[in-house]
Amino acid sequence: MSNNIPTRFPDLAPKGPSGELLLAAERAKTSFDVKDLSRFMYTKKWLDKMTQITEVLESEPAFDKTNRYYQSREEKISTSLWKDRRLTELVKEQKWSETETQIANFLFDQSTPFTLHYNMFIPTLRTQTTDEQKKLFLEPALKHHIIGCYAQTELGHGSNVQGLETTATYIPETNEFEIHSPTLTSSKWWIGGLGKAATHAIVMARLITNGKDFGPHPFCVQIRSLQDHRPLKGITVGDIGPKFGFNTVDNGFIMFEHYRIPHVAFLAKYSKVKAGSGEYVKPPNAKLSYGTMVFVRANIVMGSRFALAKATTIAIRYSAVRQQFVDAANPRKWDNKIIETPVIDYTMQQYRLLPAVAATYAFFFTGREMLRLYDLNQEAMKNGNFDLLADLHASSSGLKSLTTTMAISSIEDCRRACGGHGYSNFSGLGQFYQDYLPNVTWEGDNYILTQQTSRYLLKTFRNVVAGKAVPSEYNQTITYLTQYLENPKAKCPATKPADFLNPELILSAFGFRAAYGIAQVAEQIDRHGRTWNSMLVEIARISKAHCQFVLVRNFIIGLQADASLSTPERRPISNVLKTLSALFALYTMEQELAEFLLPGYLSSEQTAMLKAQVISLLDEIRPNAVGLVDAFALPDYFLHSALGKYDGKVYEAMTQMAEREPLNHTQVVQGYEECIKPLISQVRPKVAGDRMVFSRLLPSYKKKSKWCRVFIHFWEFSVTPLI
Amino acid sequence: MSNNIPTRFPDLAPKGPSGELLLAAERAKTSFDVKDLSRFMYTKKWLDKMTQITEVLESEPAFDKTNRYYQSREEKISTSLWKDRRLTELVKEQKWSETETQIANFLFDQSTPFTLHYNMFIPTLRTQTTDEQKKLFLEPALKHHIIGCYAQTELGHGSNVQGLETTATYIPETNEFEIHSPTLTSSKWWIGGLGKAATHAIVMARLITNGKDFGPHPFCVQIRSLQDHRPLKGITVGDIGPKFGFNTVDNGFIMFEHYRIPHVAFLAKYSKVKAGSGEYVKPPNAKLSYGTMVFVRANIVMGSRFALAKATTIAIRYSAVRQQFVDAANPRKWDNKIIETPVIDYTMQQYRLLPAVAATYAFFFTGREMLRLYDLNQEAMKNGNFDLLADLHASSSGLKSLTTTMAISSIEDCRRACGGHGYSNFSGLGQFYQDYLPNVTWEGDNYILTQQTSRYLLKTFRNVVAGKAVPSEYNQTITYLTQYLENPKAKCPATKPADFLNPELILSAFGFRAAYGIAQVAEQIDRHGRTWNSMLVEIARISKAHCQFVLVRNFIIGLQADASLSTPERRPISNVLKTLSALFALYTMEQELAEFLLPGYLSSEQTAMLKAQVISLLDEIRPNAVGLVDAFALPDYFLHSALGKYDGKVYEAMTQMAEREPLNHTQVVQGYEECIKPLISQVRPKVAGDRMVFSRLLPSYKKKSKWCRVFIHFWEFSVTPLI
Repeated sequence: MSNNIPTRFPDLAPKGPSGELLLAAERAKTSFDVKDLSRFMYTKKWLDKMTQITEVLESEPAFDKTNRYYQSREEKISTSLWKDRRLTELVKEQKWSETETQIANFLFDQSTPFTLHYNMFIPTLRTQTTDEQKKLFLEPALKHHIIGCYAQTELGHGSNVQGLETTATYIPETNEFEIHSPTLTSSKWWIGGLGKAATHAIVMARLITNGKDFGPHPFCVQIRSLQDHRPLKGITVGDIGPKFGFNTVDNGFIMFEHYRIPHVAFLAKYSKVKAGSGEYVKPPNAKLSYGTMVFVRANIVMGSRFALAKATTIAIRYSAVRQQFVDAANPRKWDNKIIETPVIDYTMQQYRLLPAVAATYAFFFTGREMLRLYDLNQEAMKNGNFDLLADLHASSSGLKSLTTTMAISSIEDCRRACGGHGYSNFSGLGQFYQDYLPNVTWEGDNYILTQQTSRYLLKTFRNVVAGKAVPSEYNQTITYLTQYLENPKAKCPATKPADFLNPELILSAFGFRAAYGIAQVAEQIDRHGRTWNSMLVEIARISKAHCQFVLVRNFIIGLQADASLSTPERRPISNVLKTLSALFALYTMEQELAEFLLPGYLSSEQTAMLKAQVISLLDEIRPNAVGLVDAFALPDYFLHSALGKYDGKVYEAMTQMAEREPLNHTQVVQGYEECIKPLISQVRPKVAGDRMVFSRLLPSYKKKSKWCRVFIHFWEFSVTPLI
Repeated sequence: MSNNIPTRFPDLAPKGPSGELLLAAERAKTSFDVKDLSRFMYTKKWLDKMTQITEVLESEPAFDKTNRYYQSREEKISTSLWKDRRLTELVKEQKWSETETQIANFLFDQSTPFTLHYNMFIPTLRTQTTDEQKKLFLEPALKHHIIGCYAQTELGHGSNVQGLETTATYIPETNEFEIHSPTLTSSKWWIGGLGKAATHAIVMARLITNGKDFGPHPFCVQIRSLQDHRPLKGITVGDIGPKFGFNTVDNGFIMFEHYRIPHVAFLAKYSKVKAGSGEYVKPPNAKLSYGTMVFVRANIVMGSRFALAKATTIAIRYSAVRQQFVDAANPRKWDNKIIETPVIDYTMQQYRLLPAVAATYAFFFTGREMLRLYDLNQEAMKNGNFDLLADLHASSSGLKSLTTTMAISSIEDCRRACGGHGYSNFSGLGQFYQDYLPNVTWEGDNYILTQQTSRYLLKTFRNVVAGKAVPSEYNQTITYLTQYLENPKAKCPATKPADFLNPELILSAFGFRAAYGIAQVAEQIDRHGRTWNSMLVEIARISKAHCQFVLVRNFIIGLQADASLSTPERRPISNVLKTLSALFALYTMEQELAEFLLPGYLSSEQTAMLKAQVISLLDEIRPNAVGLVDAFALPDYFLHSALGKYDGKVYEAMTQMAEREPLNHTQVVQGYEECIKPLISQVRPKVAGDRMVFSRLLPSYKKKSKWCRVFIHFWEFSVTPLI
């Protein structure tokens, strides 16, 4: 009998009612037009494109996800390269625009060796080069004649860009730069696409000319041969090894040994080094680049919405299918028989999941508002008006920090809310958590970023106190600080739970709480002489408080101001979004309760009302739970999750995916002959048929000593009941 | 030129001062005898054993960790089997006791296919079998003549054991049981060791005899042939596929098709089925098994201490080595030169890490106390006294929930506190997080467990109100509830920050806060008729509040009551532990601030004092940070972390581990010929030497359209600066 008999499950149905029926029942309860809510968020055009592109990808072997969860690191890199290649062909075949290509990448939902080529190499070449350099670098890059990456971070320096060690010394004799890595810590590290794929890198190196160090500047450097792809002489380059996630990307390291590059490699759109003399010419106003950072961060916020949307779609659908226990006080019936309660009916499950659904919508409104303000600001800056920039840039730092921290935490909460099966890769949530995680560190570490926001908040506070700042539509910070200073002993006016649904009450509360915190920190630093370092904990808190105000405000105002929501047909959508905005605000208030209690703004009686209102909102939203995640319109191809399948066939999908596990393709495990057989055949038991008969038992059973108490390995007792 | 040239780093030193020097400077600052603190926690005997065993393992190829972070799933399973086999030999060769074997497993720090054989199969056979069954199953298991697992959880049921679907029907005609899986959801699932290794399983199945269903009972079932290891007829068995972590274990599924087993397979120590008649005989007092659960949970608490110890050791050491920015207000000097500040000097970093160090010690004292009470209770139960049991069992549920949730959250906090490099598997924290994670779900889901604790707390509250419960040394719950009811309007007496160091003040505060929460929930349920389900959020909160009281109390009382700490030589140790206990308590109080403010127990002035005291404690503990993690005595072999190395050679270790990355064993990546070469050679540039010369540039550069605003993939902008 061959060993290569794949394991197949018997053809049995799950215990009823089936996931299909349960989800259908949920969908029947939805109070609004799910498809119309999708259109409101994405536009019909975009949804149609996504549908078309999904169909294309589903028939493309290079975009097949079937084996995604079983691959080794090498297989991941190899299949990623196939996807990269095929994508360049598909773009031509399908005549995809840049947007459509991005939709394809979104749906594929996995970074690859070429990702940084598109997202950092090309954009940098677009914005930081002269026309000559565009011809030399950008055009070949757009045609994939060269593949690039962006090499900034070093083994010893990440957050502190000014501390980078790699040098680029101008050599006037040959009109070249010499790139050099003086220490082990100066090795470039973490560079996506560099490990194995890239032929070129934008290298951030300290510009040294005429003996003077001008700090980090960008150079476009060839690193591998275009003939045979081997590293060029003077370069040590490779992959940095396995990571927590993101293993489909070849994050790499590179070291340079007195490596010469031509003068034209210095990206010279802004600052310049004059050929021959080596004279350094400073860049114009650095503020311009802050605009780009706002744009990047607005997109991270929009991205965090998709992260939340994916996680909540999976967790909500599975929670509607998965049943555990009977809620004796309120048993669920099906065909007049009591069934186990779907876990989504437990208040705790709702409390874990529905605020994350609300946050998804909150992120949408804030991302949209950030992009609107970005446009306004870009226009204004063109006319030399930098009024908008400071507030926008400061808020964008804290918002990047807050939304990505919230998103990653919700992904994990959603995963845990799926019980044991959340821990299976088939949930779609484990690898997703790992891959999303870098967002809390890159583009500015989330703790460090809060300092930027708070520095601005404190400065603005001082200006308001000094009468040097007046409220404006575009600067809500000044508005809430001014209101606070007018009445620093204000109290919340709520007298009954429903008062907490009043948008004005909510906004006043969040504004007051942020302002109070800022005032406290300003007092500690300005009056009591506390150092910045000693105040870092509170500094992070006021950034968070400010950004929570921004998120809540953008949600509430976004709903009020959007004309497309005011039609009678969209009344049900508008209603459910209003309920979500209230849940988002009040749940956040409850999480941050101490900061509302501390200034005496909220009383304990009001807190009881607030908590009651949160539970009541969960109850109100519950029937729409599945509809609200369906509206995210994420196709099964994108989710690639057994638990999150649109049709609710959770258990069928789990078993089908288990059948694919490579270990199940043989009946007897590799290692049996060497590791198991020698043990179990030490005493050969008599065998009756295929069964063991214990005929040679030893005479007595000896009790073993008690297990050691002082010390027990921490999963020594980790036992099976995983779900 | 061959492609198989492994990449090697140049022989350069990191930028100074080196990690070695920085850690040496830290160690010089330690105020206490590190080795003596280790002895206090582990005993000298245990430490000596660990050292001996570490030496043995480091020379054993089957226990080598060098390739751990690069392995595919199949390699993980295969190397795990080799370790399992070699361990059985080593135990004999080295004459290891059970404790010593556990130390070896602890040091190896990775579960394997045989883990559940030792931790569930054998213990179940020890406690649930008759003497006949011990001979039949336990003795061969101890000799590894059979390999077992524990099959309880099913695809559709985990938490709700009573909902299990697998049946075991007694067949009087043949005196057999017939095991059957009636539905797809009845498939056993998540069973460690079952996927590929086990020959036997303890199967929990609904006992049906004479037409009556008696619910889940344990059976010992052979599942694979002892001749060739193939699954026996009537059985479908395999691996459940890749998981978020724990991929060195073959968690499996199994389904039975009318599978017959002999009458003796029913584990009959407690309940019995009479042969022939099939009459069911009930088990004696079920309370006895609660004692075992307390023991298991006490060990999970002790285990969570090791999890925290590992994570904090890595993060603290690396934070002392890693330098970023110069703290202008207080620049760090080295040889009279300003150097970048080690990140551990930033208050935020201390706030993120030092409370986790304090929690590690807190878990130690609570684990120790739980084991002491377990012994007391076992003695008492033998004499028919069940007084201790209820409180102990209830607290153990909530403590398992709280400590594992805290541990997993701290592991991730520590990982993030290591910046970008925390995301590398070489940090030792990524895979560790993944492998520890099941602890929050198994042995009782952490949310569900809180209900057990709270049910007891509410019952006790009602008893105290009714005058039916009196305070005792062994029941602190009754004590704090009684105190609260005597003065439900109590206020915190602190008038200056240092007052918060008073142990009595701390304990009163935690007791009051727990009691207040319990009283509120009791009122909602008993007076206002709220359902249990609608109160689940608050129910989880009171369990947490109670368990935080227990953790704080055990730490404080443990220090006061331990005679071995009262010697003059141990004064410095006792002092630093007292400081840690204060930090643990006050940091917890700050995290849970709302619950101390809500009842008016703490004022906002007192809160300011509390916060100031926390910062001041961080400052006090800071010089001992490295000493306190060194005292955990975790060898480098155990940590297997580039960032946590005892010698501080962080960057050397990172590069050495990167050299081992399989992708770096060839110069040109697999897939280059098929995926990269066809792209970059579409236009063949003229080549001068090995460099590209752009001689065929296209005439003009066309600006591409703006990137789509409505929609951007969420790591489209995820950029390099990872650290």
